[in-house]
Amino acid sequence: MGRWEPNAQERLQVAALELFSERDFDSVTVTEIAERAGLTKRTFFRYYGDKREVLFGKQDEFFGLFTDVIATVPPESTPLEMIGAAVEAADAAFPMERQPFASRRIAVIAANTELRERELLKGASLIKAMADALRERGVAEPSATLAAELGGLAFSMAYRRWATPGNRKEFAVLARETLEELTTAAAGLSSPAVAPGR
Amino acid sequence: MGRWEPNAQERLQVAALELFSERDFDSVTVTEIAERAGLTKRTFFRYYGDKREVLFGKQDEFFGLFTDVIATVPPESTPLEMIGAAVEAADAAFPMERQPFASRRIAVIAANTELRERELLKGASLIKAMADALRERGVAEPSATLAAELGGLAFSMAYRRWATPGNRKEFAVLARETLEELTTAAAGLSSPAVAPGR
Repeated sequence: MGRWEPNAQERLQVAALELFSERDFDSVTVTEIAERAGLTKRTFFRYYGDKREVLFGKQDEFFGLFTDVIATVPPESTPLEMIGAAVEAADAAFPMERQPFASRRIAVIAANTELRERELLKGASLIKAMADALRERGVAEPSATLAAELGGLAFSMAYRRWATPGNRKEFAVLARETLEELTTAAAGLSSPAVAPGR
Repeated sequence: MGRWEPNAQERLQVAALELFSERDFDSVTVTEIAERAGLTKRTFFRYYGDKREVLFGKQDEFFGLFTDVIATVPPESTPLEMIGAAVEAADAAFPMERQPFASRRIAVIAANTELRERELLKGASLIKAMADALRERGVAEPSATLAAELGGLAFSMAYRRWATPGNRKEFAVLARETLEELTTAAAGLSSPAVAPGR
């Protein structure tokens, strides 16, 4: 087998997701994932540090993307516009044909504590990277951290909405809608909640 | 040794923190933690499921506390008041003499990925519990999730401020100040950030 394999990363992701769905996460080995993908263990480790990482490869790409977008928005942008632009830019990573994969990925992660922990760690790192980028653009604390947390929440909610079977909306549209909903909700947190009639 | 040991949990926490500070987290065993605390491994496992858990025992108490507080605030309360009351109620868990412990605990967790992941998982569960409690009080989505996330952020920031060596303010005071700062910051996210002069 040659050193370069076409779509190796995607094949490893699909194979890992299949195996994690079929069996207990703990019992799946890297060797099995590589074999299912028709690749070697060596190839697996060229891309991923461990078997958890294989479901989070895409997420690492967002670090640079979000940071770049925040660094290049017009100077008069508000913090909300900065994070909005960053989150919407993730659209390219979510073509509609990836939707079934994303939907299964969410279910597998939710069912396993170790995967959930890794997801949270990636999310926290992404939020930290966004907060750093916002501070670079002159956003003071705690506004930078708050805006980054809001961006992280919008990203995660929009991703779940996008991956929901039956959804036909593009990720960028959902990202914009979700951030608008959250902004409206934020403005209403100082008004009394309507008590349910029970 | 008897079945009941005075302050067993606190002794195990202090012993674990000492060992995690002295050596690599991975190399520390449950047996060593128990021995350092003058207790048995059996006693350790009566309180904690694994060696990560020993630094997060307190956090589990907040689930019930936050949920109870949110369930009992006056009906006309706003979502912000509900989470404010919940976070401030954690004050009892943070007497000033625990400050040096908290400060070292934060440093040890920051230095270890596995501990950081566990911290994030606990935080996410706490936020989910708060969001559930807010929905029970008639707060709609996404306001409930947003308010809970804001509460989680205020809690975590206030805890870090409280634990900072030299701080003399009570946790409840810092919790109130932090949530007010975040609320003010939220209102300003739609205004342009001032660009730094460089």
